[in-house]
Amino acid sequence: MNLNIREFSTGSDGFLTELESLLAWDSVSDLSVQDAVTNIVNQVRQHGDASVIEFTNKFDRRQVTSAAELEISREEMAAAKLRVSDELTASLEAAAKRVHDYHERQKQPSWQYQEADGTILGQKVTPLDRVGVYVPGGKAAYPSSVLMNVMPAKVAGVGEIIMVVPTPDGFVNDIVLAAAYIAGVDRVFTIGGAQAVAALAYGTDSIPKVDKIVGPGNIFVATAKRMVFGAVGIDMIAGPSEILVVCDGKTNPDWIAMDLFSQAEHDEDAQAILISPDKQFIHDVKASMERLIETQSRRDIIKVSLENRGAFVHVKDMDEAMDIANIVAAEHLELSVDEPEKWAEKIRHAGAIFMGRHTPEALGDYCAGPNHVLPTSGTARFSSPLGVYDFQKRSSLINCSSEGASALAKIASPLARGESLEAHAMSAEYRIIDEQTAGQHGE
Amino acid sequence: MNLNIREFSTGSDGFLTELESLLAWDSVSDLSVQDAVTNIVNQVRQHGDASVIEFTNKFDRRQVTSAAELEISREEMAAAKLRVSDELTASLEAAAKRVHDYHERQKQPSWQYQEADGTILGQKVTPLDRVGVYVPGGKAAYPSSVLMNVMPAKVAGVGEIIMVVPTPDGFVNDIVLAAAYIAGVDRVFTIGGAQAVAALAYGTDSIPKVDKIVGPGNIFVATAKRMVFGAVGIDMIAGPSEILVVCDGKTNPDWIAMDLFSQAEHDEDAQAILISPDKQFIHDVKASMERLIETQSRRDIIKVSLENRGAFVHVKDMDEAMDIANIVAAEHLELSVDEPEKWAEKIRHAGAIFMGRHTPEALGDYCAGPNHVLPTSGTARFSSPLGVYDFQKRSSLINCSSEGASALAKIASPLARGESLEAHAMSAEYRIIDEQTAGQHGE
Repeated sequence: MNLNIREFSTGSDGFLTELESLLAWDSVSDLSVQDAVTNIVNQVRQHGDASVIEFTNKFDRRQVTSAAELEISREEMAAAKLRVSDELTASLEAAAKRVHDYHERQKQPSWQYQEADGTILGQKVTPLDRVGVYVPGGKAAYPSSVLMNVMPAKVAGVGEIIMVVPTPDGFVNDIVLAAAYIAGVDRVFTIGGAQAVAALAYGTDSIPKVDKIVGPGNIFVATAKRMVFGAVGIDMIAGPSEILVVCDGKTNPDWIAMDLFSQAEHDEDAQAILISPDKQFIHDVKASMERLIETQSRRDIIKVSLENRGAFVHVKDMDEAMDIANIVAAEHLELSVDEPEKWAEKIRHAGAIFMGRHTPEALGDYCAGPNHVLPTSGTARFSSPLGVYDFQKRSSLINCSSEGASALAKIASPLARGESLEAHAMSAEYRIIDEQTAGQHGE
Repeated sequence: MNLNIREFSTGSDGFLTELESLLAWDSVSDLSVQDAVTNIVNQVRQHGDASVIEFTNKFDRRQVTSAAELEISREEMAAAKLRVSDELTASLEAAAKRVHDYHERQKQPSWQYQEADGTILGQKVTPLDRVGVYVPGGKAAYPSSVLMNVMPAKVAGVGEIIMVVPTPDGFVNDIVLAAAYIAGVDRVFTIGGAQAVAALAYGTDSIPKVDKIVGPGNIFVATAKRMVFGAVGIDMIAGPSEILVVCDGKTNPDWIAMDLFSQAEHDEDAQAILISPDKQFIHDVKASMERLIETQSRRDIIKVSLENRGAFVHVKDMDEAMDIANIVAAEHLELSVDEPEKWAEKIRHAGAIFMGRHTPEALGDYCAGPNHVLPTSGTARFSSPLGVYDFQKRSSLINCSSEGASALAKIASPLARGESLEAHAMSAEYRIIDEQTAGQHGE
């Protein structure tokens, strides 16, 4: 199958402008979506379970009559797991263990230290009380997403994990429930869309209010998450998934072709870009792609995504490739090169770096250990993979000795008066123990 | 001055409902503000410097003709510092040093580990390239905010720090510039409002595009920050400041009165609540407040804030006080009690915990060391003080050995096929080195 994929060269005029327009992704928030979501969120906030049931019956074509029917118990999750093949169960368990072990290293301890005058300063780290995990339902059900969103919360020590997953027409995905069981989800509700987000954010009689909502979803879910942000925490709102493969030209072109496909097959908006200093290699990969795409069940999606948003970029050398990788700040960066450690050192911005010819993104998507929820659309410039740190929060600790307080008050007082905050100054000055300045207190 | 402040008792009917309505704070986003900000952001995004100059002249009543006039050089910052009193400069420098030293402990290192089969997993931590710090101008200028927002970025190793501060009618605050100089701000622009946020988010010819914008601002600034979120990172959007003081009744009532005032004097929406198991003590504090308020230059603000949003809460005992503190999840929690360490252990949610009778919030606001940018309105349930971690981001590292890749591929392949993602499966299977399964590659 012929593939019409953009080819760039860094040597050509206007390269950076072309690159910028290739990468551009503005998540347009449709006004009609905004209105619909506002209505759903307000209804659920006001009428609780009744509205959740109403919207669920309407959008998921169900006939629920009581909120109790919306819950799936741990026993039902266990039963679903028994219906999943042994091979798949073993893979889920192996993946869960690896993801757990990697995330264990992200746990942050509390700390404190004492100063010479006895004042103690510190940072107390605590897990969130309760977290909601949104899992898309229907055709595109991703059990791997269940593991990736739930495991860091478990490792953080979150008290209770509530999962929501819509079951359109009542269809329940056993693999998703098996993943939920293995990951240790406490409660599952078969609801989705903006109504699920609103229920988690504000609570209903049956669905407990959570402190943070994570997990991917369609435009209604994303819009609802943005709307409830502040009442609860949310994770990053993701754009389309993307990969940037940098190859020195010495990897099997079929491997690189398939690595690019594995990104492109997600959806029509996914982005797969190959950078190489070897022009012949780019042509070899293209030939591989045109041959291999015939074998792909998702070839229609792959073709659209590659032709709309894919690209081959020919660079002068590997240093230039690293410069471009830092401009792109890709969600997934694959360094299919010799000495990947050396090149990874030059990378400042990327969600995850897949190093060497034996590290395709697909391994990271499922089971290498690191999280597959990663910053998209260049947001790796300022944000991080989902991690244990997203389910812990910090409280500063300040415990002044009387001597320490007195010394600090003498610093704070002029600053407070410099800001015309007199009560701040006086509150500090009350703690000054030096007799000579004690007179200021009641001024 | 008589103060009409709410009094609650946990013993009375409907206490929790009353508490909830006391704490309720919905940040209403006015449609007219939304429209105005949308227009400003779009104009600046399209016309760059020209629009920034236009809005600055209009809103700040200035007569700027070229973008170069908007910048304040490091030399001018140094000159401003010389105009500030020695006492204030010394306080700024002492505060900066303490804030720096505390935040040093928040720095997170990169890490990696090797598995038995040679696969390396890790997490690379890098600072942001460039950060914008918004500093409000005009009357309410807070040099302490400059230190608190800039120091964690400096400690994180951010490459360049750009500060924006509006100068209405051309009025420049020397203390703010001195703080910027001491904190190590690289460039200062005298712009503010939504136009400053847009300029930082998208860049203009003169104002560099940043990766994240932090710092407090009015409703226009907050709305603009929400709007550009995604293009750049932002910090939390803060609600009104609040304090919850828990006192066992053994602290000087004047001290507690002034600690409450120091919160209430911020603005009319600020919230100051006292919890005590000692009813007589609550009356003593109230008497202190009614006496001391006469001495306060900001007494009108203090009175409105206390009468609208303040409260005294009488509890059964200290355990109950801790339960309520966890419901409130206060920005500032003061434990003015014996054995504060013991009680702090029971606190799960608070921005900062001020422990003991010698630790008024004011010390933390200026110079104790921890950050004064803290989660408000109960968001301490899921978020943290501003810190070094807000200016660092993480990239996952995955470097599979050929043996490791083969083992992982056997886990990933069934999971990918379970999700109907065939290219993911094949991309993984290419890396299987077992001869018996190698035949699957070209299926």
